[in-house]
Amino acid sequence: MTDALRIGIAGLGTVGAALFRAITTRHSLLADICGRDIRIVAISARDRGRDRGIDLSGMTWFDDPVALARTADIDVLVELMGGEGDPALATVTAALERGVHVATANKALLARHGVALARIAEDKGVLLNFEAAVAGGIPVIKALRESLTGNSINRVYGILNGTCNYILTRMQRENLGFAECLAEAQRLGYAESDPAFDIEGNDTAHKLAILTSLAFGTEIAVDEVYIEGITNISIDDIRAADELGYRIKLLGVANRTATGIEQRVHPTMVPRDSMIAQVDGVTNAVTIEADILGELMLSGPGAGGDATASAVLGDIADIAKSRPGHQQAPALGRPASKLEPYRRARMQSHEGGYFISLKVADRAGVFASIATQMANNSISLESIVQRARPANAVSGPQTVILVTHATTESSVRAAVDAIKREGYLSGEPQVIRIERTRG
Amino acid sequence: MTDALRIGIAGLGTVGAALFRAITTRHSLLADICGRDIRIVAISARDRGRDRGIDLSGMTWFDDPVALARTADIDVLVELMGGEGDPALATVTAALERGVHVATANKALLARHGVALARIAEDKGVLLNFEAAVAGGIPVIKALRESLTGNSINRVYGILNGTCNYILTRMQRENLGFAECLAEAQRLGYAESDPAFDIEGNDTAHKLAILTSLAFGTEIAVDEVYIEGITNISIDDIRAADELGYRIKLLGVANRTATGIEQRVHPTMVPRDSMIAQVDGVTNAVTIEADILGELMLSGPGAGGDATASAVLGDIADIAKSRPGHQQAPALGRPASKLEPYRRARMQSHEGGYFISLKVADRAGVFASIATQMANNSISLESIVQRARPANAVSGPQTVILVTHATTESSVRAAVDAIKREGYLSGEPQVIRIERTRG
Repeated sequence: MTDALRIGIAGLGTVGAALFRAITTRHSLLADICGRDIRIVAISARDRGRDRGIDLSGMTWFDDPVALARTADIDVLVELMGGEGDPALATVTAALERGVHVATANKALLARHGVALARIAEDKGVLLNFEAAVAGGIPVIKALRESLTGNSINRVYGILNGTCNYILTRMQRENLGFAECLAEAQRLGYAESDPAFDIEGNDTAHKLAILTSLAFGTEIAVDEVYIEGITNISIDDIRAADELGYRIKLLGVANRTATGIEQRVHPTMVPRDSMIAQVDGVTNAVTIEADILGELMLSGPGAGGDATASAVLGDIADIAKSRPGHQQAPALGRPASKLEPYRRARMQSHEGGYFISLKVADRAGVFASIATQMANNSISLESIVQRARPANAVSGPQTVILVTHATTESSVRAAVDAIKREGYLSGEPQVIRIERTRG
Repeated sequence: MTDALRIGIAGLGTVGAALFRAITTRHSLLADICGRDIRIVAISARDRGRDRGIDLSGMTWFDDPVALARTADIDVLVELMGGEGDPALATVTAALERGVHVATANKALLARHGVALARIAEDKGVLLNFEAAVAGGIPVIKALRESLTGNSINRVYGILNGTCNYILTRMQRENLGFAECLAEAQRLGYAESDPAFDIEGNDTAHKLAILTSLAFGTEIAVDEVYIEGITNISIDDIRAADELGYRIKLLGVANRTATGIEQRVHPTMVPRDSMIAQVDGVTNAVTIEADILGELMLSGPGAGGDATASAVLGDIADIAKSRPGHQQAPALGRPASKLEPYRRARMQSHEGGYFISLKVADRAGVFASIATQMANNSISLESIVQRARPANAVSGPQTVILVTHATTESSVRAAVDAIKREGYLSGEPQVIRIERTRG
């Protein structure tokens, strides 16, 4: 049997502790599969004294993760601290520059510095693995990087944030408002005390930017993602969607167009009978449309200590089976020098169907005016529905729901602006993109 | 750049031709990703003269695939002939024994000889890859073999045969009979002219036996799979399932029990709202329940030349990135010497819910008799429904549908036998197992 694979772990939160337990309790199974012992030899975390229910004796402790990366006698650095800057960046950089393999669950780090880090890993002939950084335990990085080799990808999209999907699922199932479901998610530990990063779509954008690079062979461009969060989604939108045969999900979508690659994160209508509509609660799912394979969908737990640890463990096993001193598979699927610059498609050129909800004064001619403005912008309508006023309301604004056939973002914005100028709207119009799905 | 990877292909049917086109038209993309040229240098197929729309010039032709495996100047043998015996077995064996890597889509070969072939591959330090052998383009082999390393698997189940799923989907959607849908599947090329292997469940059993080995670390035991096909499923069963909130799917299921591992292929009731119930037509899907990760589901095209070729291409890319002359990852996830003997759980001990449909004479006391026999066998009922006689029938047998709570196979068989002895049944009872699913 080859020498043991020596692991240093930087970060002992929920994921780190779960990984620690998995490696120490399954030592002999892992050795059988990997052909060598997997041994944790060095640890760094914030608080040495905290009781994590795990036995750290026999391991070298580092208060400073960068010192661990620079000096510990290790083959693999596992980075589980999170955050796009230091100490995570300095730690991972130091390990790679020393020729130490890295496994990380850090999506923000990858989204910001993935290409630079991939370049260092390549130069040093080591692996940079990050299966856990996108969609938790779902092996989507491996699918794009290995299984789909040779395919040209047309679109990749998915539910990449469990917090948002939990909130939208609860709203739909229990007929509850956004604020109430967010509070519940916080109570259950599914949402942070400051939930902005999740519910405003930034977390999804980080993950999408990484997927885009792997799917399209482009440099990572997280600042080029169009982002709308779910804070604006009301129970009325969810009810209207249901009546029209849709569910509302926060999707991250990257797709190839004639003018570039779209990267967008926004609340999205998907057909109620599609598989992705059945992805409920904190579960994540990713669909990949590949030209040779066809459509592949993966779904599973997108977060949580154990699911994330499982993905890191898979990364470590791949490192254990790799042969040192040789060229390794490139981190982003192809060598960093072969990645193309990201070319952004203009959001104004986005094509698709739209759901538009308008609160209008109950006035003669409003219906005709709305239809005219749509026609003026060459938007053809699949349906236009005036919803009955609630039984307890005898007057006040009514809701008109439009569903368009495929059109462009710029046409929809122009039409909505024109309608706003007519003066019969009360409140802001709600506009939700419809995503075409199969199956 | 390392030397080119030289490929020999044995078998140029739909899959072989699709693979050939993919490798030759995407030569430069593949070279970027794999770090070396992928070059087809040798071919063997039945009919040299047949026009396959591909240019074979510059490649060495072999009438005999075994001769190709024994003598061609290749690094990888791609076996796409199919069939569990020779020439596929002799070809793959010859290649492995010479120290040539193998990629194959041959499920029957793997199900029968997988352990022996894995042992040869290990002895010779080469890879034996077979992603395309189970669920076509879906990367389930890689998920089990690599991504889920260290997890203990509790259950793996899925829709593994597109022909059966197409037929069941059509019956359900169009309210058509089995024979009609089978004929349509044959017309569309989804079913063979002799469809027995698919519709009687044997194809699913082959694939399940391979998954069982990978999931549970046991030797492959294809002859120990309990098999029922779908020929017995009527449109009445599908309608009754629908009314009770279920869909009928042909599932392959392997799960761990206290007394061994169940391997079973049979028509199965799954909740209508579950994700697997939405898997329609020729699409396949596999769900894996892992103790660290949780539940992972993969779905996509389970057959077809391109989807299968895509999986083989992924296998070839993995071989291209591996380093020759070193120990390689074992074919069945762990070394053949570490595989445990398969221990079969008795089907009589299977536990779960059951759907039972009985055609009964319209006679006083029948309901009470059925309920009594169930109670005598300690079976508790979730529901018992007497279905209305069709409007045009004023007399004749009526249908009684029972849905049981979790019980055992032996109790259900004993109860059904006792009911048969009462003499009021007309025709054979229909018994369909219900599978618990999440999500």
